[in-house]
Amino acid sequence: MNYAEESMKKHAEWEGKIEVVSRVSLKTSDDLAIAYTPGVAAPCLEIQKDYQKSFELTRRGNLVAVITDGTAVLGLGDIGPEAGMPVMEGKCVLFKTFGGVDAIPLCIRSKNVDEFVNTVYLLSGSFGGINLEDISAPRCFEIERRLKQLCDVPVFHDDQHGTATVVLAALINAFKVTKKKAEDVTCVINGAGAAGIAICKLLQKFGIKNIIMCDSKGAIVKGNPNLNSAKAEIAEITNFDRRSGTLGDVIVGADIFIGVSAAGVLTQDMVRSMAPDPIVLAMANPVPEIFPDLAKEAGAAIVGTGRSDYPNQINNVLCFPGIFKGALRVRASDINTEMQIAAAHAIADFVKPDALCAENIIPSPLENGVADKVADDVAAAAIKCGLARHF
Amino acid sequence: MNYAEESMKKHAEWEGKIEVVSRVSLKTSDDLAIAYTPGVAAPCLEIQKDYQKSFELTRRGNLVAVITDGTAVLGLGDIGPEAGMPVMEGKCVLFKTFGGVDAIPLCIRSKNVDEFVNTVYLLSGSFGGINLEDISAPRCFEIERRLKQLCDVPVFHDDQHGTATVVLAALINAFKVTKKKAEDVTCVINGAGAAGIAICKLLQKFGIKNIIMCDSKGAIVKGNPNLNSAKAEIAEITNFDRRSGTLGDVIVGADIFIGVSAAGVLTQDMVRSMAPDPIVLAMANPVPEIFPDLAKEAGAAIVGTGRSDYPNQINNVLCFPGIFKGALRVRASDINTEMQIAAAHAIADFVKPDALCAENIIPSPLENGVADKVADDVAAAAIKCGLARHF
Repeated sequence: MNYAEESMKKHAEWEGKIEVVSRVSLKTSDDLAIAYTPGVAAPCLEIQKDYQKSFELTRRGNLVAVITDGTAVLGLGDIGPEAGMPVMEGKCVLFKTFGGVDAIPLCIRSKNVDEFVNTVYLLSGSFGGINLEDISAPRCFEIERRLKQLCDVPVFHDDQHGTATVVLAALINAFKVTKKKAEDVTCVINGAGAAGIAICKLLQKFGIKNIIMCDSKGAIVKGNPNLNSAKAEIAEITNFDRRSGTLGDVIVGADIFIGVSAAGVLTQDMVRSMAPDPIVLAMANPVPEIFPDLAKEAGAAIVGTGRSDYPNQINNVLCFPGIFKGALRVRASDINTEMQIAAAHAIADFVKPDALCAENIIPSPLENGVADKVADDVAAAAIKCGLARHF
Repeated sequence: MNYAEESMKKHAEWEGKIEVVSRVSLKTSDDLAIAYTPGVAAPCLEIQKDYQKSFELTRRGNLVAVITDGTAVLGLGDIGPEAGMPVMEGKCVLFKTFGGVDAIPLCIRSKNVDEFVNTVYLLSGSFGGINLEDISAPRCFEIERRLKQLCDVPVFHDDQHGTATVVLAALINAFKVTKKKAEDVTCVINGAGAAGIAICKLLQKFGIKNIIMCDSKGAIVKGNPNLNSAKAEIAEITNFDRRSGTLGDVIVGADIFIGVSAAGVLTQDMVRSMAPDPIVLAMANPVPEIFPDLAKEAGAAIVGTGRSDYPNQINNVLCFPGIFKGALRVRASDINTEMQIAAAHAIADFVKPDALCAENIIPSPLENGVADKVADDVAAAAIKCGLARHF
C-alpha cells in the first residue's frame, strides 16, 4: 500500500481524526440550568474553595494536551506548528484508542524557549497532563526541565521518554532470551538527539553502566570542546574508557546496538565485530540502520526495528497511553524514572514466558490490554514514590 | 428544583461534560500507518505547502477554543482560571449541542493583558475560531481588540457580542410588536461593563442613535474626568443632550430599558415614567432589574429577562453556536458587526409572524434549527463582507 497516498485521501475525508462530543444531554430548560447557568456556579465555587476538585468536576482529570512547536515533526524537521498538527491529532487518537485518555492537540507559534514554556505553563490548569511532542533538540531538554519545575501536572516528552521506556522493555526481554545481564553488557547508542540521550539516561538508571554514545561524528568523549551542553553532560556519565573514533571503532565487542539515527549506518561487518549474541535495535524510520535479515545473517541474536512489517516493533504507543492513564488515575504530579521503569517491566511482562523468543521480545502495538497493565503498574509506582494525590 | 445542589451532584457524576473521541478506527497496522506514521507525513507536508489546508486536513476547521482567565465568571467575579472551567465546559456543550461545533475549554493563569494576548495568539494556529469568555472589563476590550488584529481566525467575546446580538434580535421583534422605529426611540442601557458597552455599539450600528448609558453612579456624560477609557469612548457617542443624574432621572421618557446590571434597580415608578408602551429587557441574573409581573403592572408593553421561567428569555445560546458555525463554514477571518446583525435578524425571523406577540419576541434557547438559520445568514454576510476564505 502507498501509505502517503492513502493517508492524504483519508485525511481529506476524515475532516479531523478527533472530535469533541458532549457527555450531557440538553433537552429541557432544567438540563440547561444544571449543566450551565445558574447551576454551574456551584461546581465553580467548589473548585475555588478546593483546587484539587478541578480534576473531578471537569474533564481535566482524564485530559492530556499534546503540544508541539512543529520544529522536529517525524523525520521531516521544522515544518511549522500547523503542519505538525496531523501528527498531534494522530497521537490524540492513540491516547484515546489505547488508553481511554482524552487528548487535545495544540501547536504553539514560537521557537523561543521562554515563550513556549510560558505559554504551556499558563495553560496548564486546563489539563491533567502535558505530552510534549516533536520539539527539536537541544531546546526540548530545557523546555521539559523548566515545565516540570513549573507545572503541577505531569509533563512528559514522549520522543525522549516514551522511546526510552519501550527500548528498555525490549532490552529486559532481550536479556532474558540471550542470558545477558544489565550490569555486564556494553551498549552503543548511535544518535545523540532527544531519544538517544533519554535512552542513555534511562538505561543507566536501570543498571546498564557501560554505555558509549555516538553522534554523526563518532563516539562522544569527555573533553571534546565542541559538544553542546546535553552531549557534554552525556560525556560525563558514559564512555568511561574514553574510547574515541567512529561507530565502527567503538561497536567492536559491544553487546547492544541501539540506533536512533539514520538509514543503513550499521554494516554487517560491524555486527560481526560485536560480542557474541548481539542485540540490535535499529529504529531509524522508515529505513532502519540495518535491515533485520542482514543483521541476523551477520550473527545478531535479536533484532528490533520501528517497522510493523518486521518482528519486534519498538513503538511508543506501547507506552504513553498507559503511562498517562496510570498517572491520571492517581493524579500524579510528575512522571518520573521509577514510573517509566515500572512501565517498561509491564510491557516486557506482557510477553508471556512461553511466547518469549528472539522474534517476540515485545508486544504488538495493537495488542489489547497493554495500556491497562502499564497503567496499573505506573499508578502503583507513583503511589510508592509519593507522587500520587488521589487514591 | 435546587439547581446548585443538583448541579454539584451531576458534575461529580459526569466526570466532565465533554469528551474527546476518535473519528478513526485503528484495528490493523495499516490503519496505524495511515492515521499515524509513516502515512501522516503526507498531510503534514501538504499543510506546510499550503497553510489553508490545515483547516481541511485536521479538525481545526470545525474547532473553537473557549478561553477564559477566570476574572469575571458568571456573577461570581474573579474566582480564578480553574474555577471558571465548569462554565467553559458548559459552553463547549452548548457549541456542540446547538451548533455541531467542536469546542475545547482553556483557562489561562494570568491577569496580565500582554501575557493573555500572547498566549492566545501563539495557540491560534490550533483552532478555527476563538471564543473569549468571562474576562473582566475593561481588560476584555483591549484583549479582544489586540487579538482581532493578531489572529487570522475569528475572535469573539461572547459576553459582549453574543449578548448584544441577542438583545438586538429581541428589539427587532419588539419594534414590530410595539410599532416603534429604531431611528425614533430613546434607549437607556443600565450597566456599563462588557455587555452594556457592546450592546450600545451594536444598537448604534443598527440605527438606534439616541442612547444613554448608566453605570452604578448614574448617566455617563461626556466631560466627566473619572470615566475609564471604555466609558469615555461611550460618552463621546451617546447622550448627546448631556443628561446627567441617576437612572431614575434619565429613564423618564425613554422607550427602552436594557439592564445588564443588578437585581431590582428598576422600580415600577421608573417604568411608569417611560414613554408609552415601553420595552424592558431586564437581564440581571438570577434576579432581574425588575420582575416581569411588576414591570407589566407598571405599563411595560414587552418584558424580557435572562431567566427560563419567564417569557422572552434573552440567552446567548441563541447566537454563538450559529455565529461560529457560519463563520467556520466559510472560514471567515473575522466576525464583524454585519455578521452580528445578520445573526440578529435570523434569530428574530425565527419567530413566525403569526406567533409573534409581546410574550414571544424571541425563540426559546432549546428551539431546534435556530443555529442553522443563524449559520446560513452569518456565512452569507461573511461572504458579502469579503471575510470568507472558503466557498
